[in-house]
Amino acid sequence: MEKKTLLTHCTDEPGLISKITNICYKHQLNIIHNNEFVDNTCGHFFMRTELEGIFNDETLLHDLDQALPAGTSRRLLSSSKKRVVIMVTKEAHCLGDILMKAFDGSLNIDIAAVVGNYDHLQNLTEKFDIPYHHVSHQDLSRQEHEQRILETIEQYNADYIVLAKYMRVLTPEFVESYRHKIINIHHSFLPAFIGAKPYQQAYDRGVKIIGATAHFVTNDLDEGPIIKQDVIPVDHNFSAEDMAKAGRDVEKNVLSRALNKVVNDHVFVYENKTVIL
Amino acid sequence: MEKKTLLTHCTDEPGLISKITNICYKHQLNIIHNNEFVDNTCGHFFMRTELEGIFNDETLLHDLDQALPAGTSRRLLSSSKKRVVIMVTKEAHCLGDILMKAFDGSLNIDIAAVVGNYDHLQNLTEKFDIPYHHVSHQDLSRQEHEQRILETIEQYNADYIVLAKYMRVLTPEFVESYRHKIINIHHSFLPAFIGAKPYQQAYDRGVKIIGATAHFVTNDLDEGPIIKQDVIPVDHNFSAEDMAKAGRDVEKNVLSRALNKVVNDHVFVYENKTVIL
Amino acid sequence: MEKKTLLTHCTDEPGLISKITNICYKHQLNIIHNNEFVDNTCGHFFMRTELEGIFNDETLLHDLDQALPAGTSRRLLSSSKKRVVIMVTKEAHCLGDILMKAFDGSLNIDIAAVVGNYDHLQNLTEKFDIPYHHVSHQDLSRQEHEQRILETIEQYNADYIVLAKYMRVLTPEFVESYRHKIINIHHSFLPAFIGAKPYQQAYDRGVKIIGATAHFVTNDLDEGPIIKQDVIPVDHNFSAEDMAKAGRDVEKNVLSRALNKVVNDHVFVYENKTVIL
Amino acid sequence: MEKKTLLTHCTDEPGLISKITNICYKHQLNIIHNNEFVDNTCGHFFMRTELEGIFNDETLLHDLDQALPAGTSRRLLSSSKKRVVIMVTKEAHCLGDILMKAFDGSLNIDIAAVVGNYDHLQNLTEKFDIPYHHVSHQDLSRQEHEQRILETIEQYNADYIVLAKYMRVLTPEFVESYRHKIINIHHSFLPAFIGAKPYQQAYDRGVKIIGATAHFVTNDLDEGPIIKQDVIPVDHNFSAEDMAKAGRDVEKNVLSRALNKVVNDHVFVYENKTVIL
Repeated sequence: MEKKTLLTHCTDEPGLISKITNICYKHQLNIIHNNEFVDNTCGHFFMRTELEGIFNDETLLHDLDQALPAGTSRRLLSSSKKRVVIMVTKEAHCLGDILMKAFDGSLNIDIAAVVGNYDHLQNLTEKFDIPYHHVSHQDLSRQEHEQRILETIEQYNADYIVLAKYMRVLTPEFVESYRHKIINIHHSFLPAFIGAKPYQQAYDRGVKIIGATAHFVTNDLDEGPIIKQDVIPVDHNFSAEDMAKAGRDVEKNVLSRALNKVVNDHVFVYENKTVIL
Repeated sequence: MEKKTLLTHCTDEPGLISKITNICYKHQLNIIHNNEFVDNTCGHFFMRTELEGIFNDETLLHDLDQALPAGTSRRLLSSSKKRVVIMVTKEAHCLGDILMKAFDGSLNIDIAAVVGNYDHLQNLTEKFDIPYHHVSHQDLSRQEHEQRILETIEQYNADYIVLAKYMRVLTPEFVESYRHKIINIHHSFLPAFIGAKPYQQAYDRGVKIIGATAHFVTNDLDEGPIIKQDVIPVDHNFSAEDMAKAGRDVEKNVLSRALNKVVNDHVFVYENKTVIL
Repeated sequence: MEKKTLLTHCTDEPGLISKITNICYKHQLNIIHNNEFVDNTCGHFFMRTELEGIFNDETLLHDLDQALPAGTSRRLLSSSKKRVVIMVTKEAHCLGDILMKAFDGSLNIDIAAVVGNYDHLQNLTEKFDIPYHHVSHQDLSRQEHEQRILETIEQYNADYIVLAKYMRVLTPEFVESYRHKIINIHHSFLPAFIGAKPYQQAYDRGVKIIGATAHFVTNDLDEGPIIKQDVIPVDHNFSAEDMAKAGRDVEKNVLSRALNKVVNDHVFVYENKTVIL
Repeated sequence: MEKKTLLTHCTDEPGLISKITNICYKHQLNIIHNNEFVDNTCGHFFMRTELEGIFNDETLLHDLDQALPAGTSRRLLSSSKKRVVIMVTKEAHCLGDILMKAFDGSLNIDIAAVVGNYDHLQNLTEKFDIPYHHVSHQDLSRQEHEQRILETIEQYNADYIVLAKYMRVLTPEFVESYRHKIINIHHSFLPAFIGAKPYQQAYDRGVKIIGATAHFVTNDLDEGPIIKQDVIPVDHNFSAEDMAKAGRDVEKNVLSRALNKVVNDHVFVYENKTVIL
């Protein structure tokens, strides 16, 4: 008995749940969890179905294609570990949390490699017997630097790239190479404090809550589909530096919770938003 | 076009979603929202289906009964306002919040009457043109007192009884008369601080968080199925009285959020727990 | 025995706490609560002292002035109820919550009057025997409209003006008349979603958390000193309208908690931020 | 210029703040942060003063002793890193988080050693070049086992012992050896679900929120002074195992936040409660 997850989305019309579950039933696949959502604003249907049984992928997908409207997206995903490459700069907390969770099995991932534009986190990474690539940006144009990173990453055939406090903006070319596969943690409660130094911005504005946002990266800086957000209270006692320190736990928790949803195939991206089933 | 909600629960078996959605489809009812849940521990299936169309209740239920396993519970509920009787003692905040939310339409209820064992809240209730019954417990046995309340309430034919800080324990007879229809707000994060004076208990224990719990009332004091809970942080600065004061907002918010779920037919009660779809 | 609160703030220098508490001690005033804060970034000292005893205000303030650096701000405030005028448009929830909390004593205020640019909330206000002034903006310029409101409010000699979902932007003249005395509730987690229709903006951006912000009003729209913020989680199931509905409880809770801090003299305003002691 | 923290607590009487700050002023010590608290219920005064300057510890403490009531507790603590020994069983997440935070400097501690009654976490500990002692409880009485642990720990001269999911109950003798120096993380929102298997208890009760509690260990199981608590929402979708999984992040965050307060000398223990200044 195998387990797989079926992700379906298409234009909404009556009878979709019935059609999909009928097909699963005919294939003698047991539905362990099923969640669906209709976005009534745009008339779009989303369904996530966790299945158990003996799969004939080809005929199952064929039957779905026959039954569902043209233009339907349906993916049948195995429950094996996703391959992830992590990109970092200097800060250890997000990387550290992911390393630890991969180590103790809390996150369903294999960390194929870590790539950093500094060597600060090489030692930490190698403690966990994971290859670290120091790809410095010094004396390189942005394009050259990214080209080197792309070449480094390529060999790992990653399902997802995680920017665990990677502090450089990616070019559209890079983003395009891994469309909807790059997950970033931004250290503010987006869309507040877009851009550089969000904790300093938060301090200057005198906010009483700070947060972090995990999102897919698109070409618009800090504007990609949001996966997860969380916040913590602050007050006048917090300097910008105190906020940054306090924010670390939120950042790492938000990033790893977002990652958990993504790698377990709970997340649809649609019209610059996420539907998480 | 009408809107109704179908609540189904039964022993789990393969094909249930398919069967139910097929029947809805055949009846030309459009599924607006659908949520289901299988409790794998006890092998039980729950489904909530919001439907839109022209209903023939009898044949729809008949078709469901034919298709579903023996012992299935299925209810088809109209979306009209639920009738509610509120019971109070002296504290105004929970009653006040419900009065206000019924007034401004935030809660889908009609408040048929308020019953209090003191007259403290008569004036507030009558501001909103709602009948207030002062049924004092003085010089009465618990049984006599409750008998009078039951007689008072009876005429209103209530869908639900809300204990909005009603501070007396109900007898098994009373509870039995309104099985799974009495909703209480307990001023602690249950099961911490069962019984009397939970804020004093919380103060004595030195907790750093206090809370409130909305639950259905059963014969075991503070042991009924939990609908909603929420908490707020406290610290050494809070006396027991400060905690009680700070707790008011949590109590009223938890109660009205629980009530909102119940009166909109989102809540299943099963084996002393709730499933909220 | 009386209770008063002393609010002191000045440029920081060594020995300030010692000087102030010495003077209180000499005046045989008992310190019930004391909190101080030094903003090390700008070198400014803040102290809030709750005192009990027999007060000779004049000599106490004189002694403080002698001891403290030139330019010190010190205010000695009685613990009596603050007079508040509330301004509204159409939405009931924030007004309702304040009315209820003034009624049951949770908020240390007297509501002198409610002013609305519509008459929607007249009935609700008058239930609580509070005068309601309907000052329509129709056929009036912004200046004319505000002039009428100012004339209406003037008679009440209010300590604070509360904008309880008053949906019009105030002119600099109005704001200047009540400098640091106008408290607004903005229905977003500022500085995210400044301006009109924040819930629609939040929906469009696909955020996973929405919030509300209580702040003093200044001439820069939604840019005044923040007093309190809070948030609630949302997800893809929420339409913009659902967010607005869910946000109501946050809005009213944030506003009344902010108000509670302000009217009990906990809030300093300094350099477009608040220090809350 | 050095930095030290002065922790004072004694029976409350008028003039204490004035006396203490006067003495600091006379010693030409600058007060960077000062916080005080009077527990009006038991008439006890607490003050935490962060000082900067050139310290003559002996004369400073002497002056304080002269000025303050008999029975005053005052401690002058250096800001250097505290030495910590961590005790574990099998679960990695709390240990992992502390290792990581000591590694990246987020926690002001030196981890002297890790002691485990299994060897599961030896490999993880040694990655960070910290000695791991596997002290198995097999074939030993509780007393014998603890004796071996005590002998192992002794050499490290620890300021604090952290029970990072150490799953055995300590004897009164052990607890007495490190009075108010043993910090435990309990995987429930105490006092709910005292004792074994709190997540199973939480599941059985059908709660909608689960939590974790960091507390000092006393001889009454799970009854020691609470330092920090936090919670996360759960619902009917969570099995007991899901709760345990989801609870890991709360546990580790609560533990390291509690530890952070303790090792930076913010925590007073008084009458089985904590005052955190």
